[in-house]
Amino acid sequence: MKDERELYMGRALRLAKKAASMGEVPVGAVIVKDGKVIATGYNKRETLKNALAHAEIIAINRACRKLGGWRLHMCDIYVTLEPCPMCAGAIINARIKTVYVGAKDTSRGALGSFCDLASASGLYHPKVEFGCLQQDCSNVLTEFFRGLRHG
Amino acid sequence: MKDERELYMGRALRLAKKAASMGEVPVGAVIVKDGKVIATGYNKRETLKNALAHAEIIAINRACRKLGGWRLHMCDIYVTLEPCPMCAGAIINARIKTVYVGAKDTSRGALGSFCDLASASGLYHPKVEFGCLQQDCSNVLTEFFRGLRHG
Repeated sequence: MKDERELYMGRALRLAKKAASMGEVPVGAVIVKDGKVIATGYNKRETLKNALAHAEIIAINRACRKLGGWRLHMCDIYVTLEPCPMCAGAIINARIKTVYVGAKDTSRGALGSFCDLASASGLYHPKVEFGCLQQDCSNVLTEFFRGLRHG
Repeated sequence: MKDERELYMGRALRLAKKAASMGEVPVGAVIVKDGKVIATGYNKRETLKNALAHAEIIAINRACRKLGGWRLHMCDIYVTLEPCPMCAGAIINARIKTVYVGAKDTSRGALGSFCDLASASGLYHPKVEFGCLQQDCSNVLTEFFRGLRHG
């Protein structure tokens, strides 16, 4: 039987695949509160022609609207790829409780890889857990970029 | 005669004061392209009940919509307070050319004070210039927080 975390990350992974099918770098995000998915997002930077349209930003925007407040301190976020500085900063600003990360982003990941905003002194510290469906989350990116190289 | 930069920062400062009048932490942002203001924003976190609603994010969102693309590489941004990690990350993701900062934010500023995302290896590097109307930008924050303490 699947771990609850794998179910949520599995949903984020399906969103990442939807992004890939639209020619977007495949990243998906799911926000969960009290065992319910309250908001989702996937990368739409090219589709929306907007530098802010990362999966996490779209999901956090929807969660704030849905809950009617800027504090998401009772929420967890599941992301298929380690957040960039913008998205890690947004997660911190929104006081999200726990961040579940699929694949690490060694070049831009801001929760421990490229830098670690989540344990920086003076900022709010979300809990961060790596490794949920890591291989699947990594594969979807590898396949996407392989597809791009081969036209 | 006023320096052009002081004119743009002056406009950001008036936006910060508008935020203060609404009970928001006073921060304003102005995006300029080819000598024209193309987008503005001021902090609306409480008003919009949204963790993303910082001055810079609102202005970048508007600029991307206005220009119809996610790359703002011909644009400069004027901000009354040094951007937090989320906003510095957004400025980097949008490839903004130059960031003019009024007051430093020693506790959360991510362009050199708390951390320095603008010179991190592997990320896009915007130019960063501090000091434009620094005292005025600092005063508007000091007065706002003094007002809060005295009810």
